[in-house]
Amino acid sequence: MESDARAQRHRERMQRKKALVDAGIARATIERGIIVVNTGNGKGKSSSGFGMVARALGHGLHVGVVQFIKGSFSTGEEAFFRRFPGEVSYHVMGEGFTWETQDRERDIRAAQKAWQLAADMLSDPELDLVLLDELNIALKYQYVDVADVIAALTSRPPNQHVVITGRAAPQALVDIADTVTEMQVVKHAFAAGIKAQKGIEL
Amino acid sequence: MESDARAQRHRERMQRKKALVDAGIARATIERGIIVVNTGNGKGKSSSGFGMVARALGHGLHVGVVQFIKGSFSTGEEAFFRRFPGEVSYHVMGEGFTWETQDRERDIRAAQKAWQLAADMLSDPELDLVLLDELNIALKYQYVDVADVIAALTSRPPNQHVVITGRAAPQALVDIADTVTEMQVVKHAFAAGIKAQKGIEL
Repeated sequence: MESDARAQRHRERMQRKKALVDAGIARATIERGIIVVNTGNGKGKSSSGFGMVARALGHGLHVGVVQFIKGSFSTGEEAFFRRFPGEVSYHVMGEGFTWETQDRERDIRAAQKAWQLAADMLSDPELDLVLLDELNIALKYQYVDVADVIAALTSRPPNQHVVITGRAAPQALVDIADTVTEMQVVKHAFAAGIKAQKGIEL
Repeated sequence: MESDARAQRHRERMQRKKALVDAGIARATIERGIIVVNTGNGKGKSSSGFGMVARALGHGLHVGVVQFIKGSFSTGEEAFFRRFPGEVSYHVMGEGFTWETQDRERDIRAAQKAWQLAADMLSDPELDLVLLDELNIALKYQYVDVADVIAALTSRPPNQHVVITGRAAPQALVDIADTVTEMQVVKHAFAAGIKAQKGIEL
């Protein structure tokens, strides 16, 4: 009997939840390209962007990727998504981390070159999803002008989705974005002395 | 001259940063399988897990995936990663959302069946990375016992990485995890009336 009562309570709770979920779905009728920003200090900003790339490819969509920070990281996803040249246009900025080059002028030139490729993607109606990985870092160091980015985003093809990652997203970008998530660190293996490993960070 | 001074300040700041980064890398010497938990109410928990799957595949690793919640969502990643049967062992729990079935007993049976597959993966030394997508939801509803999950995680092959996603991760799981991120909503397109779209949520 107790079990029956529990089953009944569960059913009623789930009916209320379903009504709420269905109402939310019924209200959400707009279909257009959105801007997704993943920021914060926690893990998952870039990997979430690459998960969305995988999801898009599962639907047969076409994807453009520009990685603004090349370094010892980010090698696995590049190797993987380069397997699909007809579906993914993949560009990695050809310089190291800013603290590796230590050369502001060289960094600016490299970031501007990457931004030109990104701007081309943002005007290409054939691309359904564009991932601008670590663009926020280039904006933070003022290697790329946030006003240029806002202008390119607001004039892009109306059905194109854009995902922008990196800590410290500028407020102007957050303001025009549709979905913004802050990844917060609860704990991180690196702080406990565990090195970056393949499949996790690399 | 001002530009020279700025370039010099940049170089010095980056040298200090590089020293910090290098010291952190030098301290992080442990190499072993880690447990990553993506929780919170924000976007990116599952997609980050699937991004790590892509990263792992880029390194030629073998991956197991169990999706504990099947619904109208999560179709793109399934279609995509099923392209690689030799590299990814992919299982989706065969029932809908809990608020769709509204049947606690049926949900428990389905979750337990999915958990048995997950437990098999967690004892398989051939799998380098195991993604247990939305396991936290099954734990929250007590469809799967957290003690069983902790026992399986702590006795898994030492080099196996595990990624567990879903809101409301139980504290016992957070306690034994190595990297825990809380995805926080800053804003979400759905709340502004934009429907779930392919490549983004689907």
